[in-house]
Amino acid sequence: METKTERSGMTLAAILDTALEMAASRGLESLTIGEVAKQLNLSKSGVFSRIGSREAMQRAVIEEYERRFLQDVFVPALREPRGLPRLNCIMRLWLQRVRDVEGARGCIFVAGAFEFDDREGPLRDLLLDGIRRWRTALKRTVIQAIDAGHLKPDTDPEQLLFEMGSLFVGLMHDARFLRDPRAGERMWAAWLRLAGTYLVPGIEIDTPAVPGRPSAR
Amino acid sequence: METKTERSGMTLAAILDTALEMAASRGLESLTIGEVAKQLNLSKSGVFSRIGSREAMQRAVIEEYERRFLQDVFVPALREPRGLPRLNCIMRLWLQRVRDVEGARGCIFVAGAFEFDDREGPLRDLLLDGIRRWRTALKRTVIQAIDAGHLKPDTDPEQLLFEMGSLFVGLMHDARFLRDPRAGERMWAAWLRLAGTYLVPGIEIDTPAVPGRPSAR
Repeated sequence: METKTERSGMTLAAILDTALEMAASRGLESLTIGEVAKQLNLSKSGVFSRIGSREAMQRAVIEEYERRFLQDVFVPALREPRGLPRLNCIMRLWLQRVRDVEGARGCIFVAGAFEFDDREGPLRDLLLDGIRRWRTALKRTVIQAIDAGHLKPDTDPEQLLFEMGSLFVGLMHDARFLRDPRAGERMWAAWLRLAGTYLVPGIEIDTPAVPGRPSAR
Repeated sequence: METKTERSGMTLAAILDTALEMAASRGLESLTIGEVAKQLNLSKSGVFSRIGSREAMQRAVIEEYERRFLQDVFVPALREPRGLPRLNCIMRLWLQRVRDVEGARGCIFVAGAFEFDDREGPLRDLLLDGIRRWRTALKRTVIQAIDAGHLKPDTDPEQLLFEMGSLFVGLMHDARFLRDPRAGERMWAAWLRLAGTYLVPGIEIDTPAVPGRPSAR
């Protein structure tokens, strides 16, 4: 039987985890202190005392989501040499993350983009800031690949960012809504095709194989 | 002053138009008989007697949306010769429609895809059927372009459909959420780049200019 002591051992991390899961599957707007409390079998005041208001919880969820995304996709890619190897590594890890995490739960940034496209407010601003930070990091990586002589010197980084971003939004659409089991392969083939139009002749992607199937975790 | 006679002249078309507008801006899930009635200054029973249940209204909205989409994008393209001219015309008219209609109100199919990606039910099924019908029509157009010798014989139609679809989902993300005024241009440049990788050498797109800016309507 669960005791009060065990319950009070319920950490902020567990609350955040539950809130993250709920936001990813049902949308940020549906996230409430009451629902999170119910899910964890805690009182509303117990959740409130740890995480604060509903707005603070939504903000914490967005920040935690971004932290995990960068940890999975960007941080490991920094070990690769600047230029095409790092850019391609980001694309691999991003696809891998969609397959492992977002294919199952949904991406709060992409779902949020279509939920908040015409709704003003602090949540829209937080999501927008997160996407802009990510695009800035990607843009730096693209510019490094141009400077390294891997991508053609006339590459328009913003154009390439639009095209890379579209592949992932398209992937999530086809994987999650159409439930097309081949969406990941198609996204990867599209990336190789797209990259091919930007590569300096003689430069090739060293790991062209499609990233692995969903892993259990 | 509005009279009862004038009110009863309110047609089913006006109800459908209001419902369509609401679904496009706030999502299909938020569409209710009560809200439509309020918007039109009618009684709930007045709306119900014309359009039926909430589910019937949602279904009617999806069907009407699809009818208008095909009328704007597919029907005029059938006047173009089979093959690349028709395929490119579809892409032009689709982008034009996003700029004219969906940039302002949102696309109920794309927004719906992210709203209903993990929610089972008749609405999900209706949206899915609509998207599948559209992809089937597009696939036929792509196959005709291969048969006409415009696209390379090894073109994988499903792969190209994924890539074309991604461009539009990406466009809506950047135009509506990021509010990037250059999203339409970027989508068009991406289409020309993508098409270039599929065209038989010597074949060119005859109208490469980016479709016009949003028109007032």
